[in-house]
Amino acid sequence: MSDKVTIALDTMGGDRAPEMVLRGANIALRRFPQAYYRLYGVDSRIKPLLAKLPRLSERATVHHTDEVVTGDARPSVALRTGRRSSMRLAIDAVAEGEADCVVSAGNTGALMAMAKFALKTLPGIDRPAMASIVPTERGESVMLDLGANIECDADNLVQFALLGDVFARTVLGLIQPTVGILNIGSEDMKGHDEVRAAAARLRESGSPVRFHGFVEGNDIGAGTVDVVVTDGFTGNIALKTAEGTARLYGQFVRAAFRHSVAARVGYLFAANALRRLRERLDPRRYNGAVFLGLDGIAVKSHGGTDALGFANAVGVAVDMKVNGFLDKIRDGITALAAVPAPVP
Amino acid sequence: MSDKVTIALDTMGGDRAPEMVLRGANIALRRFPQAYYRLYGVDSRIKPLLAKLPRLSERATVHHTDEVVTGDARPSVALRTGRRSSMRLAIDAVAEGEADCVVSAGNTGALMAMAKFALKTLPGIDRPAMASIVPTERGESVMLDLGANIECDADNLVQFALLGDVFARTVLGLIQPTVGILNIGSEDMKGHDEVRAAAARLRESGSPVRFHGFVEGNDIGAGTVDVVVTDGFTGNIALKTAEGTARLYGQFVRAAFRHSVAARVGYLFAANALRRLRERLDPRRYNGAVFLGLDGIAVKSHGGTDALGFANAVGVAVDMKVNGFLDKIRDGITALAAVPAPVP
Repeated sequence: MSDKVTIALDTMGGDRAPEMVLRGANIALRRFPQAYYRLYGVDSRIKPLLAKLPRLSERATVHHTDEVVTGDARPSVALRTGRRSSMRLAIDAVAEGEADCVVSAGNTGALMAMAKFALKTLPGIDRPAMASIVPTERGESVMLDLGANIECDADNLVQFALLGDVFARTVLGLIQPTVGILNIGSEDMKGHDEVRAAAARLRESGSPVRFHGFVEGNDIGAGTVDVVVTDGFTGNIALKTAEGTARLYGQFVRAAFRHSVAARVGYLFAANALRRLRERLDPRRYNGAVFLGLDGIAVKSHGGTDALGFANAVGVAVDMKVNGFLDKIRDGITALAAVPAPVP
Repeated sequence: MSDKVTIALDTMGGDRAPEMVLRGANIALRRFPQAYYRLYGVDSRIKPLLAKLPRLSERATVHHTDEVVTGDARPSVALRTGRRSSMRLAIDAVAEGEADCVVSAGNTGALMAMAKFALKTLPGIDRPAMASIVPTERGESVMLDLGANIECDADNLVQFALLGDVFARTVLGLIQPTVGILNIGSEDMKGHDEVRAAAARLRESGSPVRFHGFVEGNDIGAGTVDVVVTDGFTGNIALKTAEGTARLYGQFVRAAFRHSVAARVGYLFAANALRRLRERLDPRRYNGAVFLGLDGIAVKSHGGTDALGFANAVGVAVDMKVNGFLDKIRDGITALAAVPAPVP
């Protein structure tokens, strides 16, 4: 655990960059004393901030570039024209072995396109997927894909199952995570061809994944499985629906406490408990979507997060490195390749 | 509003049928004094219950059958072999003009298959969709399809937009509801071909639908639009994800109030407000998924609901009848057919 970990940061990505990024990196140092940073971005904006963060400045080197990928740039355009951008240089640091992982709060599509181009996918993985940790009644689960692949075939879903399994082991620390495929019913006959074919393959004996079967939307919050596998269209909508529902529920709770004098008094007594509740549901705790399936560790922070949220995204990247995510994925791919395809 | 409305009930569908169905029908009579029931099911089980519900027994006729569609029956099998089932006879009552609408808490797939076969789809509608009312920060919205059609083309989605629009007018009482298509981003270029083609058609001038554009998962809870249109796979998963998140959040709130003595005291003061909150979020309030696009009114109650939830499902059916849903849909289809298809 004490080996040095070098993190390349795109300091210019995110709504409140570069300050949010640097303050987040500084917070992460408390949890990870073995962390070192390579900071990519505009020198004249990074240096004054670094002067105020002495602990961080001891652990960071600054790599100047004037170029920045904007939030609305198309991924294909960013890939073609952004070769000297802070985002791309941070990714290249991983590709060239100068850093162990990269974290950016910038344009998601551009980050995915650049990371895929510069880091390449792992042998045996056709397409990378975006994964995130989600809160559940039983603790935490992993969900993927969250939007990298709008349409997925059965092979993609089987690979996502493996990627999610290894991510749950290395980041959540689970021994033998259970994996489910998101569907509109739990019976074998339900759903479209892709989910049924993927489930058939994961049920084969010899699969390295502990496959639970199909799960439904409500199983995400229930924590029925440790890893929820789905295509990027459904996954993105499910994740954002959950966020919207949590927000709605929070609004209803606040309205309830404003409703009467007694409720306001009750709020005063319960204020401490309600503060803990807010902390428990704090979206910053779950910040840091990971691109899985690349030959390198790349983490996307939410663009609108603050320093604490960014520090959590850095933490996910460090956990993946320290716990040997890439080596374990390679082992898993070998095991998966040995599983015979089911007879159609 | 005082015209008689006749509701055909499948008294044998649902976990606690027939008692839950009959008690629910009885509750609905308070809100709808103009309601009359045709009760389909096992005579020897209905009659003793009816003896305890004098108000209901004055307004109901019993139509005996021994046959019942089981919860696990395949839709195709139920359609072929269940011609004398309580579910089918209740649907047939609508097809034959003996009832204005049908409500069942039985097997969803079987109900959809039978209703489609017996009632037929409206001219201009290729496939019926399942719709439901969902709670939002701004009040209530309509979402469809919730699982009737796993894969949908652009024409289906355009038709769902129209069906949802008219449902929002007749059941939520909105004057000019806004309609959005669920996608993974709000930009025109996002999503797969089907959602982009449907959006292009709905943007055409002359469309009878007030089209907002694409919405994302979090827009469901935010109430950004009055009608959320999506395919049945995504819609089913989004609806159930929202249910699961609400459940998770409720569990967190309860845990917070158990956390300390002060929190328990706060709970006592706030108990009334929290009870109102529970009522506001009560899933029974939103019970009653509707099959839209059929030439007849068919409502599916949740199988696990109680009498109060079933009464709400009856209420949805009565609202559709009283507010002329079918006539308004026919007008909308005519208007939609007059809109030229956009140049691809």
